[in-house]
Amino acid sequence: MNMSIGRLEHGKRNLITDVPGVRVGHTTIDREDCHTGVTVVMPLSPNPFTDKLTAASCVFNGFGKTLGLVQVDELGTLETPIALTNTLNVGKVHDAMVSYMIDLCRKDGIKLTSVNPVVCECNDSHISDIAKRPIGEAEVFAAIESASEDFAQGAVGAGRGTICYGMKGGIGSSSRLIKLDGKTYTMGVLVQSNYGASADFRDAALPPDLAESDKGSIILILATDLPLSARQLKRVLRRTSVGMARLGSYIGHGSGEIAVGFTTAQLQPTGTSFLTQTVLREEYMNLPFRAAGECAEEAILQSMWNSDAETALDGSRIPSLKEYLKEKRS
Amino acid sequence: MNMSIGRLEHGKRNLITDVPGVRVGHTTIDREDCHTGVTVVMPLSPNPFTDKLTAASCVFNGFGKTLGLVQVDELGTLETPIALTNTLNVGKVHDAMVSYMIDLCRKDGIKLTSVNPVVCECNDSHISDIAKRPIGEAEVFAAIESASEDFAQGAVGAGRGTICYGMKGGIGSSSRLIKLDGKTYTMGVLVQSNYGASADFRDAALPPDLAESDKGSIILILATDLPLSARQLKRVLRRTSVGMARLGSYIGHGSGEIAVGFTTAQLQPTGTSFLTQTVLREEYMNLPFRAAGECAEEAILQSMWNSDAETALDGSRIPSLKEYLKEKRS
Amino acid sequence: MNMSIGRLEHGKRNLITDVPGVRVGHTTIDREDCHTGVTVVMPLSPNPFTDKLTAASCVFNGFGKTLGLVQVDELGTLETPIALTNTLNVGKVHDAMVSYMIDLCRKDGIKLTSVNPVVCECNDSHISDIAKRPIGEAEVFAAIESASEDFAQGAVGAGRGTICYGMKGGIGSSSRLIKLDGKTYTMGVLVQSNYGASADFRDAALPPDLAESDKGSIILILATDLPLSARQLKRVLRRTSVGMARLGSYIGHGSGEIAVGFTTAQLQPTGTSFLTQTVLREEYMNLPFRAAGECAEEAILQSMWNSDAETALDGSRIPSLKEYLKEKRS
Amino acid sequence: MNMSIGRLEHGKRNLITDVPGVRVGHTTIDREDCHTGVTVVMPLSPNPFTDKLTAASCVFNGFGKTLGLVQVDELGTLETPIALTNTLNVGKVHDAMVSYMIDLCRKDGIKLTSVNPVVCECNDSHISDIAKRPIGEAEVFAAIESASEDFAQGAVGAGRGTICYGMKGGIGSSSRLIKLDGKTYTMGVLVQSNYGASADFRDAALPPDLAESDKGSIILILATDLPLSARQLKRVLRRTSVGMARLGSYIGHGSGEIAVGFTTAQLQPTGTSFLTQTVLREEYMNLPFRAAGECAEEAILQSMWNSDAETALDGSRIPSLKEYLKEKRS
Repeated sequence: MNMSIGRLEHGKRNLITDVPGVRVGHTTIDREDCHTGVTVVMPLSPNPFTDKLTAASCVFNGFGKTLGLVQVDELGTLETPIALTNTLNVGKVHDAMVSYMIDLCRKDGIKLTSVNPVVCECNDSHISDIAKRPIGEAEVFAAIESASEDFAQGAVGAGRGTICYGMKGGIGSSSRLIKLDGKTYTMGVLVQSNYGASADFRDAALPPDLAESDKGSIILILATDLPLSARQLKRVLRRTSVGMARLGSYIGHGSGEIAVGFTTAQLQPTGTSFLTQTVLREEYMNLPFRAAGECAEEAILQSMWNSDAETALDGSRIPSLKEYLKEKRS
Repeated sequence: MNMSIGRLEHGKRNLITDVPGVRVGHTTIDREDCHTGVTVVMPLSPNPFTDKLTAASCVFNGFGKTLGLVQVDELGTLETPIALTNTLNVGKVHDAMVSYMIDLCRKDGIKLTSVNPVVCECNDSHISDIAKRPIGEAEVFAAIESASEDFAQGAVGAGRGTICYGMKGGIGSSSRLIKLDGKTYTMGVLVQSNYGASADFRDAALPPDLAESDKGSIILILATDLPLSARQLKRVLRRTSVGMARLGSYIGHGSGEIAVGFTTAQLQPTGTSFLTQTVLREEYMNLPFRAAGECAEEAILQSMWNSDAETALDGSRIPSLKEYLKEKRS
Repeated sequence: MNMSIGRLEHGKRNLITDVPGVRVGHTTIDREDCHTGVTVVMPLSPNPFTDKLTAASCVFNGFGKTLGLVQVDELGTLETPIALTNTLNVGKVHDAMVSYMIDLCRKDGIKLTSVNPVVCECNDSHISDIAKRPIGEAEVFAAIESASEDFAQGAVGAGRGTICYGMKGGIGSSSRLIKLDGKTYTMGVLVQSNYGASADFRDAALPPDLAESDKGSIILILATDLPLSARQLKRVLRRTSVGMARLGSYIGHGSGEIAVGFTTAQLQPTGTSFLTQTVLREEYMNLPFRAAGECAEEAILQSMWNSDAETALDGSRIPSLKEYLKEKRS
Repeated sequence: MNMSIGRLEHGKRNLITDVPGVRVGHTTIDREDCHTGVTVVMPLSPNPFTDKLTAASCVFNGFGKTLGLVQVDELGTLETPIALTNTLNVGKVHDAMVSYMIDLCRKDGIKLTSVNPVVCECNDSHISDIAKRPIGEAEVFAAIESASEDFAQGAVGAGRGTICYGMKGGIGSSSRLIKLDGKTYTMGVLVQSNYGASADFRDAALPPDLAESDKGSIILILATDLPLSARQLKRVLRRTSVGMARLGSYIGHGSGEIAVGFTTAQLQPTGTSFLTQTVLREEYMNLPFRAAGECAEEAILQSMWNSDAETALDGSRIPSLKEYLKEKRS
C-alpha cells in the first residue's frame, strides 16, 4: 500500500528488515479449526546469546502474556530471537526457543544452562481454536529457517488469525530513515495487530453494530541500527503508542499492548571488564521518537491493508481494510 | 468553543469542576516582563490532609519538574490541593502550599509536621521572564481564595505564558459523563498546555518555519467521582496521552508530560484499622478510559481556543487557534 | 528447626499453608542426571480464573525468567495456581498450567481462551541436567493432585536441585500471625532458595574457597488472609528482601530475586459493575511489613535446615546447613 | 569509629569525598527551637548544568518528599548539586538552588530558563520546630561555599535534628575501593539517617519502651568514579537497602527511604550528536553491588557514632550510640 504517514522517508523495503541484519520468518497453520502461526524476528547476531543486543520493553497495557520482559528490563539486553504467536501457545513456543538456543550454543561449544526467550502474543480465538496450541518445535524451527529480509505481511504467521478495528489484522511492518551527522540510520517496526473496536477506527464509517473484539492485543517489535542505550530505547518504544492513538484506539482494558525493541549497534561480546559504547546524545531523541510513531502507525495500516476478509469460527465475517475503504469511497 | 470530540456526553459546564466539590482558582501576574501565574485545583475535602483522596500519577515523558509524585505513587493518596505554575517557581509555590496546609491544619487543631504538596509546572520562558519567580504566598493564597466552580480558561493563571503547537496555549478543561448501573459519574480534565511543534498540529496548514517551542510540557489534572483504586486511576491517567497523540504530538524529548489524578469517591478519614471501599470492577474500565482520552483532547483544544494571540519576549508573534482556523478556512 | 527469627508468633504449622485454604504440592524428579521438580502453591479459590485473587509482584533483581508478571502488575490479580520449577523448564510448565486451567474451566462450563499462568524458576544446573526439561503435564498435574496443607520442605519439588549460600537449599516456608482489632490474620512465605555466596552467609565460618554459585535466584511466594489492595501487597513484598539481606546476601547480579504474593481476603467473583472491598488502613502496614521480613528470613533458613548434603553433577559436595552449624560449634 | 563492616577496603578518608572531585558542605541552624540545617553534595562538575553527570534514583519506600526524581529517572542525568534538609523546608531549598544555578550559569554566559534541583529530606520535628523553615538562600549558599573534601559527620547540617533507631542520628559517610583491570575506583555513600525503631537495632538491648520515631526517613547519596550507565547505577542503588536491613530495619511504612547516585566518570558536555561512553560490563556488577551495601551500612553507623545525645523538643532524651554501646558492654 502506498501510504503517506508522517514526514520521514522510509527505507528500501519499508520493512523492519531494512535495518541491516534483521530478518523475519513465519510459519502459518491452517488445519481444521486452527488458523494461527508463529513469526520470528531474528536480530543481527548469528548467536544473540553470546553477542547480546541492547534492548528494552514498554508495556502500555499489561493485560497480556508476553514472556521474558523481567530480564530485558533489568539487564537491557536481548539474547534470543523474538517470537510472536497466540496467547495460549506461548509456553510451547518458549520451550521451542530454549531448544533452539541450546542447539545454537552447542554449535559454538557452549553448554547452555540459562536463557531468556522473548515470546509475545495476541489472542486469535475468534478465528482459530486457541485451546489446541499447534505451534511446537517443528513450527518454530521452520519459521527461523525461513527468515529472510523479504517476508509476507497480512494474515500470515502470528498474524494469521488476528482482528484489528473489527477488520482483518495481521503482521505489518514499516521503516523510516534517520539522518544524523551525515550518516543514515534505519528504524523499523513490525506489528501483530489485534486491537481496537471497529467504531473507533479513524474516520470510521463502519456500522456500529459490527462485533467488537474484546480480547485484543497489539505487539510492536522495533529494531534500529541507531546507537541507543537501553534507557533511550525504552523512551523510543513509548512513542509507538502515538501510532495506535492516531488510528483511533483508546488503549482498551482487554488489550495487551506491548512493545519490545533492540538496537543492532551495540553487540556486547564477552571480554574485558569494560565496554566502550556510542550512544545518541539525548538532545537528538526527537528524530527517533518521530520515526517510532510513524513506523508504528504505518505498520498497523500495512497489517490491515495486506489482509483479506476472513470468516470467524462463529461464522461471522471479518471484513478487510480494502473493502472498508472501497465502501467508504462509494 | 463548541467542539465534538469523542462520543461521550460532557457535563453541565464542560469543566473539571463538573465533578462535585472540585473547584479551580487562578492568580495571573502581568507586570514588567513577567506574564505568568498559578492555578490551583481544589479537591473535594475541606482539609485533604485529614481526609485524604485516592490519587495516582502517570509520567509520559519525565523531562519535567513536578513535585510530590514519589509519595503519591507509594501511598496512592493526595493530601493537598494541586498547584500549577512555571518551571522555576515550583519551589516557592511548594513552600506557599506548606504554609497553607500548616494554617489549615492549625484551624483543625493539628500541628502539621509533614505534608506532600503536589506542584506541577510548564516552562513559559518565551513569554515571561522565568528567572524572576514572582509567585509566592500571596499569589498562591489568592488563587486558593478565588477557587470556584466557574473559572476562566486560556491565558490565565499557570497558562498565562504557555505555547501549544506554536500557538498560544494556556489552561483548558473538559468533562465527560460516565453512566454505570443507572447512576451518572463525572470525569474532568484540566490542562496546562505548553507542548507540541506547530508543524505537527493535526491537519496543520501552518508554515513550517514557525518557531518551534523546544522547552515544552503539558500537565493534565484529572478528577472524577467514580470509585477507583489508585492502581485503576493510574491506568485511567495513561489514556490521557491518547488525547495528545490525536492532536499531533510525538511526545517530544524536551517536553515534561505528566498527569495527576484523584477520585473524590473514597475520602479516607482516620479511624479503625480497616477501610471499606467501593471500586469499579476492572471489566468496566473501558468507559473511564474513553472518557479520559476525550477529556484530554478537548481540554487541550479549549486551552488554545480560549487564548488570544500573544507577543513573545523576543518580539515574535504567537498566533491564536482562532486565527489559525480562520486562515485555514479562507 | 526451632528458630527464633523476629518477634512475631508463627502459625500452627509454621508454613504458608497456615493461611486458610492455601495448599502446596510437589513432584520431585530423580532419574539419570535429572534431580529437579515442580512445586505448586494453590490459592484459596477452587477456580482462581473465575474467582480471581488480589495479587502483586516485586522484582528485586530481574536476572530471572519468571512468567506472568506483566498481567499481575497491570490488573493486580492472580488467576492460576503458582508453579515453581527450573529455569529451562518454565515454558513446558506454562503449557501444562494452560492445559490444567482449560480443563478446570471446562468443568465450570467455561471455554477458556486466555489465561495468565504464573511460573517462577531457579537454576539448578549444578545438581541437575537442566537442558533435559523433564517436567511436563504429568508432573505438574501430579503436583497439583498432591497439594495439601502439610508438605515437605528441603530438597523436594522445585527445590530438589537448588543451592543456597554454597549449601544445599530447597523449598522452605514459615508463617506469622498478625493481630489487629481483636482478630488474628496469617501471613506465610514459601521460598525456592538458590542464591548467595557461601562466604556471605551471616556469621559465616565457611572456607572462602568454597565454590560460589553464580547462576542463582530466589523465589518468594507470599500468601495472607489480611485484606490488602494490590498496591499494598507490593509494598509488603518489598519487605521480603529484608530477610535475604539479614542472612548475608548482597542481591547478586546473577541472581533472579523475585517475590509474588496474593491475599485470599478479596475473591473477585463476576457480577455487578462495582466491588466493595475491605483494605487495611495504610497506617497499620508496619505489622505486615515486619511479618514479611520475618517469614522470608525464616523460610530461607528452613529450606536449608530441611535439606541434606548433596553431590553436584561435577562431583563436588554441597554441604548442608546442619553440617555447617555442627562444624561451627565444634 | 573504627568499624569493620564488610570485606572491601575503604578509601583514604572513608568518606564520600574519597571519590575525586566530590565535596560536601553543611550549614547548621541552632536558634530558638530550630535545630536543623542543610547539607550539599557537590558533584565533580564546576557547572553540572553544562557538564551533566550520569545519575539515577531508587525509592525503597516513597513516604517522602524528595524533589527532582522525575527528571533524573527519565534522562539519567544530574544537573545540580544535591541538597538535603528537613521535610517542610524542601521548597525553599529548591528555590535557593534555582537561584544558585541561575547565577552559576550567568557566569558561564548562559541564561538559565529550566533546571532540575534534587532536594532530599528527613523529618526532624522531634528535635526542631519544623514549621519554621529557617533554611533559605543564605544558608544554602553558605553550605555550598563551605563544601570541601573534609566535612563533619553526626548532628550537623541536614543531620542536626535526626533520630536513628531511637538514638541520635545525623550525617554519616563511608567509602570503598573497587579494583578492576588493575585500576582502583572509589564508591562513597553519605546518609542522612532518621529511620528505624529502637527495638529493631541489631543486637538491640535497648529498653523496648523507648519512644519510637514514626515519621522517619533515610536519604542515601552515592557517588562513584566507576563508569556506569544510569540503568546500572539504579541497580547499584538498590543494594544500599542491604545496609539498612542488616542494621535491623523492616523499611517502615512512615519512613521515606530514598537513594540518589551519580558517577563522575561520564561528564556529558554539549557537542556532536553522539557520545562515546565507557561502561562496566554487566558481569562485573557484583563488586559495586557489594561496595554499595557495605558503604551504606557503615555510613549509617558513622552517622550515629559521630552524634552526641540530644534532648527532644518534648524534653525526652535521645541517647547516643556511644552511650548505648557502653551500657551494653557493662
